[in-house]
Amino acid sequence: MQNFVFCSPTTFVFGKDTENETGDFVRKFGGTKVMIHYGGGSVVRSGLLDRVKASLDEAGIACCELGGAQPNPRSGLVYEGIEMARRENVDFIIGLGGGSAIDSAKAIAVGVPYDGDFWDFYDDKAEPENTLPIATVVTIPAAGSEGSNSSVITHEEGMLKRGLGHESIRPVFSIMNPELTFTLPPYQTACGCADIMAHILERYLTNTRDVEMTDRLCESVLKTLIEDVPVVLQEPEHYGARANIFWAGMIAHNNSCGVGREQDWSSHQIEHELSALYDVAHGAGLAVIFPAFMKYTLKHDVQRYAQLAVRVWNCEMDFQNPEKTAREGIARFEAFLKSIGMPVTLEELGAREEDIPAMAAKTKMGPNDILGSFMPLSRKDVEAIYRLSMQSNASSR
Amino acid sequence: MQNFVFCSPTTFVFGKDTENETGDFVRKFGGTKVMIHYGGGSVVRSGLLDRVKASLDEAGIACCELGGAQPNPRSGLVYEGIEMARRENVDFIIGLGGGSAIDSAKAIAVGVPYDGDFWDFYDDKAEPENTLPIATVVTIPAAGSEGSNSSVITHEEGMLKRGLGHESIRPVFSIMNPELTFTLPPYQTACGCADIMAHILERYLTNTRDVEMTDRLCESVLKTLIEDVPVVLQEPEHYGARANIFWAGMIAHNNSCGVGREQDWSSHQIEHELSALYDVAHGAGLAVIFPAFMKYTLKHDVQRYAQLAVRVWNCEMDFQNPEKTAREGIARFEAFLKSIGMPVTLEELGAREEDIPAMAAKTKMGPNDILGSFMPLSRKDVEAIYRLSMQSNASSR
Repeated sequence: MQNFVFCSPTTFVFGKDTENETGDFVRKFGGTKVMIHYGGGSVVRSGLLDRVKASLDEAGIACCELGGAQPNPRSGLVYEGIEMARRENVDFIIGLGGGSAIDSAKAIAVGVPYDGDFWDFYDDKAEPENTLPIATVVTIPAAGSEGSNSSVITHEEGMLKRGLGHESIRPVFSIMNPELTFTLPPYQTACGCADIMAHILERYLTNTRDVEMTDRLCESVLKTLIEDVPVVLQEPEHYGARANIFWAGMIAHNNSCGVGREQDWSSHQIEHELSALYDVAHGAGLAVIFPAFMKYTLKHDVQRYAQLAVRVWNCEMDFQNPEKTAREGIARFEAFLKSIGMPVTLEELGAREEDIPAMAAKTKMGPNDILGSFMPLSRKDVEAIYRLSMQSNASSR
Repeated sequence: MQNFVFCSPTTFVFGKDTENETGDFVRKFGGTKVMIHYGGGSVVRSGLLDRVKASLDEAGIACCELGGAQPNPRSGLVYEGIEMARRENVDFIIGLGGGSAIDSAKAIAVGVPYDGDFWDFYDDKAEPENTLPIATVVTIPAAGSEGSNSSVITHEEGMLKRGLGHESIRPVFSIMNPELTFTLPPYQTACGCADIMAHILERYLTNTRDVEMTDRLCESVLKTLIEDVPVVLQEPEHYGARANIFWAGMIAHNNSCGVGREQDWSSHQIEHELSALYDVAHGAGLAVIFPAFMKYTLKHDVQRYAQLAVRVWNCEMDFQNPEKTAREGIARFEAFLKSIGMPVTLEELGAREEDIPAMAAKTKMGPNDILGSFMPLSRKDVEAIYRLSMQSNASSR
């Protein structure tokens, strides 16, 4: 296990009707003028925005609002939000919705007190020094942004998708009412599941040894999703299953499952180009890329893949041929994704084979043009993974 | 799942040599004059106390020290610590050692700014309003006090053992260097393991439904201990296994595994009388009480016990006779405790059958003289559990 510092100071307010406590918590954390940043009309139509505003009002807290955050949130709206927040003297930001609204709200929170272009933070040119406190009212279990120190934004100039990781953008509190997820369409529920699984797998696929405790935590999250996602696809208002998935989404990305280990994150980088180019849902892109990444890297650590297959996918270990077990695990993962309605090939996403070289060329690599750490990838490897994701060998189950 | 609020804001500084960062972190959290509270001579002999003091000195932070905290820490030393801290104008407390030193340090931290008797907080007569910030340098994986909001103290008058749970006594930071646990004697290592397992089981045995995610987290911790504790008993300086056990001990008690569910905690109350009367190690007392509690409550929820048996103890489910599977799980738990050197009967602890009525009479019950929530216990039940723990049916494995 590696040395680490872990701090997840967010206050999670979880359960039925908790959105009505928003105002109390803003007051507790010292906010006096709030900007609520949200996405589409569903939070308006459902009455959620009104309930949150009523709660703020009851606590004597003024607010302004900015809607319009889209999946793969764009820089344009962030600039607009920063301007509005300055104009309105906002001292507290609430991201209301899924990961996109929250990530966009985080970008506004770092941008408001900064003299330069907020994009500097996403482009590794500057580090946030002052950040407005940010809180969330989450409606989608997926990005885990409600408990994480990260935010991903797409810059419209060049459609570059970049992430920022910084402790100052961890929410001070997050309101999580599982009932708010009842109306999520099946496709979005499944995309969220794929995203959560990917957050775990980016951590699970590591070269760090002696990480039994966090391995087991990772496996717990995957097993919970495998059990509960099919339940909510059948019965969207199953409170218990929705609650488990919601909490799993937070745990998967506040790093409690990832401490003390080298993490990979190359599949996320590879996917980013995909959703930047075709504007596909992040989770759907990951459902396509991750199995391909796994097949490509399988031989790098057959035993780790076999462990995943046995412990999570209930494969029986083939002690004569661990690689067979490892492959069976990946096949079951792919079949699971398919069974919950996810695409598992680039074709299904509408991607074109001829775009692959350009995507590989645009992928943000690490130092020395190498990506990831589990099996360090060259651009050639990245291109090969895109190509591998053109086809699938998943069987329906 | 029940509604909950969860916040675990402690900064965990984990890994080799991290005790040398103590001074930096005290400064970061605003401390200027520290009291280091510790237990026996081992932290002196090993040079740990000197290293921590050197780190404080380097950061320009003054300190005073108070040793002598014992297992099942007593009120006398707490009164002494409170007086010393006031006299020395201490504004920051460090508990250095295992759960006893830390719990004692927490009691001092709540007591210093309080006009009355600190025992009021442990006796449910008052609630802490101002508490000095507390940090820890942990040397024993067991109590989980490094991440928890709780502290247990024994009052010398009447030998009453009582717990306080309050958010203000969660450490602001905790230093966790697994190397500091290399020299733990096998018996103390095993006691710690029993304590950690009990912290999980008090949460696992619940009547709350739809808690799949936290069930699985609980199981992760138990499985990690089952794997790694025998490793360190064979090879005390196995860094990886020590690290996993250390982190497991924290997770087991910062409540990340217990959110959203009714918890029991009757075995802890039953054990408290045992260690107050015979001064046995808390973990050893729990190793005796818990299997008896489980046998006594088995019929209350056979399926839950069968789940535990199958998922954690690798029992094969007997679908014709789930109770058989459930019993086998408890037997394997008992055999595991025995295999790591724990007592599993009251006799082994030196307890006397004739003391049982007095212990049952002294046990701190809940409202209406009922204890716990999983299977609410009367005093008669408590007495029956003490009696059941006189004998064992554990086989050595």
